[in-house]
Amino acid sequence: MSLESYMNQVGQQAREASRALAKASTQQKNRALFAMAQALEDARPHLMEENAKDIKNGKEKGLDAALLDRLLLDDARIDGMINGLKQVASLPDPIGEVSNMVYLPSGIQRGQMRVPLGVIGIIYESRPNVTIDAASLCLKSGNATILRGGSEAFYSNQAIAGAVKAGIVEAGLPENAVQVLNTTDREAVGKLITMPEFVDVIVPRGGKGLIERISQDARVPVIKHLDGNCHVYIDDEADLDKAFAIALNAKTRRYGVCNAMESLLVHQSILNAILPRLVTAYQDKGVALVGCEAIRAIYSNIEPATEEDWYTEYLAPKLSIKVVSNIDEAIAHINHYGSHHTDAIVSNNYAKTRAFMTEVDSSSVMVNASTSFADGFEYGFGAEIGISTDKIHARGPVGLLGLTSQKYVVLGDGHTRDN
Amino acid sequence: MSLESYMNQVGQQAREASRALAKASTQQKNRALFAMAQALEDARPHLMEENAKDIKNGKEKGLDAALLDRLLLDDARIDGMINGLKQVASLPDPIGEVSNMVYLPSGIQRGQMRVPLGVIGIIYESRPNVTIDAASLCLKSGNATILRGGSEAFYSNQAIAGAVKAGIVEAGLPENAVQVLNTTDREAVGKLITMPEFVDVIVPRGGKGLIERISQDARVPVIKHLDGNCHVYIDDEADLDKAFAIALNAKTRRYGVCNAMESLLVHQSILNAILPRLVTAYQDKGVALVGCEAIRAIYSNIEPATEEDWYTEYLAPKLSIKVVSNIDEAIAHINHYGSHHTDAIVSNNYAKTRAFMTEVDSSSVMVNASTSFADGFEYGFGAEIGISTDKIHARGPVGLLGLTSQKYVVLGDGHTRDN
Repeated sequence: MSLESYMNQVGQQAREASRALAKASTQQKNRALFAMAQALEDARPHLMEENAKDIKNGKEKGLDAALLDRLLLDDARIDGMINGLKQVASLPDPIGEVSNMVYLPSGIQRGQMRVPLGVIGIIYESRPNVTIDAASLCLKSGNATILRGGSEAFYSNQAIAGAVKAGIVEAGLPENAVQVLNTTDREAVGKLITMPEFVDVIVPRGGKGLIERISQDARVPVIKHLDGNCHVYIDDEADLDKAFAIALNAKTRRYGVCNAMESLLVHQSILNAILPRLVTAYQDKGVALVGCEAIRAIYSNIEPATEEDWYTEYLAPKLSIKVVSNIDEAIAHINHYGSHHTDAIVSNNYAKTRAFMTEVDSSSVMVNASTSFADGFEYGFGAEIGISTDKIHARGPVGLLGLTSQKYVVLGDGHTRDN
Repeated sequence: MSLESYMNQVGQQAREASRALAKASTQQKNRALFAMAQALEDARPHLMEENAKDIKNGKEKGLDAALLDRLLLDDARIDGMINGLKQVASLPDPIGEVSNMVYLPSGIQRGQMRVPLGVIGIIYESRPNVTIDAASLCLKSGNATILRGGSEAFYSNQAIAGAVKAGIVEAGLPENAVQVLNTTDREAVGKLITMPEFVDVIVPRGGKGLIERISQDARVPVIKHLDGNCHVYIDDEADLDKAFAIALNAKTRRYGVCNAMESLLVHQSILNAILPRLVTAYQDKGVALVGCEAIRAIYSNIEPATEEDWYTEYLAPKLSIKVVSNIDEAIAHINHYGSHHTDAIVSNNYAKTRAFMTEVDSSSVMVNASTSFADGFEYGFGAEIGISTDKIHARGPVGLLGLTSQKYVVLGDGHTRDN
């Protein structure tokens, strides 16, 4: 079968499965999630065998240690997938909720019913556990899924796919509710993102390069996460102990995450009161610092920040620091150089925190809290499929609700429209 | 200035204006809308003069009577624009609303704040009043707008743009809050839909061809309306008088609108009870009928429906009629051949109406009501920018809320994240 025919068949099957999933009961979807968990448990030795093939191939291809680690499926990671499935089963089912049902002057009632998006295509890099994360969230929200994992994880993903299918079939749902592509052909991605007749939305998970390429070429809406160039602004009316704790936590909790602070803005009036403590703490942790001229006037050993630095998501123990003369300058800097992901103010001034919340154009805006909280679990969603930096549809951490849509429902009693 | 530089300047100006609009008060936005209304009133003679140039050019170009009529600005249409502005001013301001604010286990509070999308590009065909409709809805929802109207309405749109600017400036908002492109170069559209750094979303209004081209080429999210191939299904447990009224209203209220029924599905058991009345009524109104074989077995003078007919939005006094043997066949037909716009069931059976509402995958699903109600005004939004056939973001009639997004706001008191 040609790739074109194969992808059309996968798409057609997903569309058909999505119809059955859309009307599946909560109980049936949860039964499938528990059956998937059991099937993973039963397949444990097989999963490890198949994963060993990927690891062997990866070593031969010369993948670096970090990539090989991400690829590895050991008992702890299989436990993680199994627990993830059970956790998704425990989440409330978003589908079918009817809201805003009101009578209108014509006599009709109009409301909105929450429904699945339909078919979701997920494109991701080498971590095989994403197969389970994505499949479980999509299934719980009533969507059919087409998964395309990294070629390095091919054997692992196929083995996981087998367990997923077994669980789905056992619960009486269509086996094509979750399909993992059985090809590593790169053309398959090109086809997946350009068949709007079969795929309603694409969620790419991976590096910025992957996501930009997919957004560029897609003919289907893409829920995407680009970069997280997050800021903390310490106002002159900040509690300095809280400011210190937040600025330290936002940068050093983890370096490689999208909600880590990459740029610190400090009001000029409190520079001398807060910066020495912070600089010492950062340097103790090995965080490289670059700063504006005003910073360098005090700390001549801090390297100068370039224009490029203010735009940069380091994802590393590195931080740019800038002195600002007021909150407006801070907001303007964030809206100009930031990536509209997550930005925080530390201040006890009511008017300034109110202005910051309103005017900073980011998916999460925080007052007196660390940017680290921008996360689906911390926000109470129980799970997340990713963090969206789009403004359309889902913005910020995306849980089950972000995988749904709402349709209008109208109830009448023979109503017709006059004019 | 090159087109490229011009469009970049327009985009940059819109982005800057959007920052001011996002924090404008409700009062200020309403003041601008009233000032725009007054400016249109004051410019009435000028608007008509400029419109006369478009009409003259249109006649010379040989535009047909329908197009020339859509182009015309007479006193009644200027009144319409003025009233439209006042009506939008009277709508509640969606911006700033905070919802779902809850305490989470970490101690932070997390909620969602409704915010503007930012910059909205509107591309439309020749009706000049769309300039006011679109500008007023975008302004009320705090968005900057870049408008690109049809070249036939160039002078009319520029004159309207002058009045719009005058109103905006009088209210103290940035004059670039609404920009009407001053070029008819087609390349301008190509540029407008491919500058995500300046434009957050595109709303095309016009024929399906225009919208498909724009969706194909855009690098910015598009809120789009494709076709409205709407169905009414008359169940065997329908009240026949109500079914008759709804099926007649849905087809014949207006023919050229997207919420008109294009295909009628009738349960085989009640065919003889309902069809003769309907056929007579349709034929009295001059509606051409095509039908499936079962229909033609009774009415040999009805033309056969082709496979293509079931997919077709006629936008004309024409209707396809099909006999189905049960509700599942009706739902499957609608989901396969329909355009996921608006579909209705007429039935008094609880289980069947419940199944129809759940399983029909359309932006509006109606029970015992005419498809004609699918409309922003009828749904109580006060105004609409269009009807979306997308599932992502806004689905169905799009009012002010569809022009907004929600960002997360987090309130803490020095909170940091441990793990």
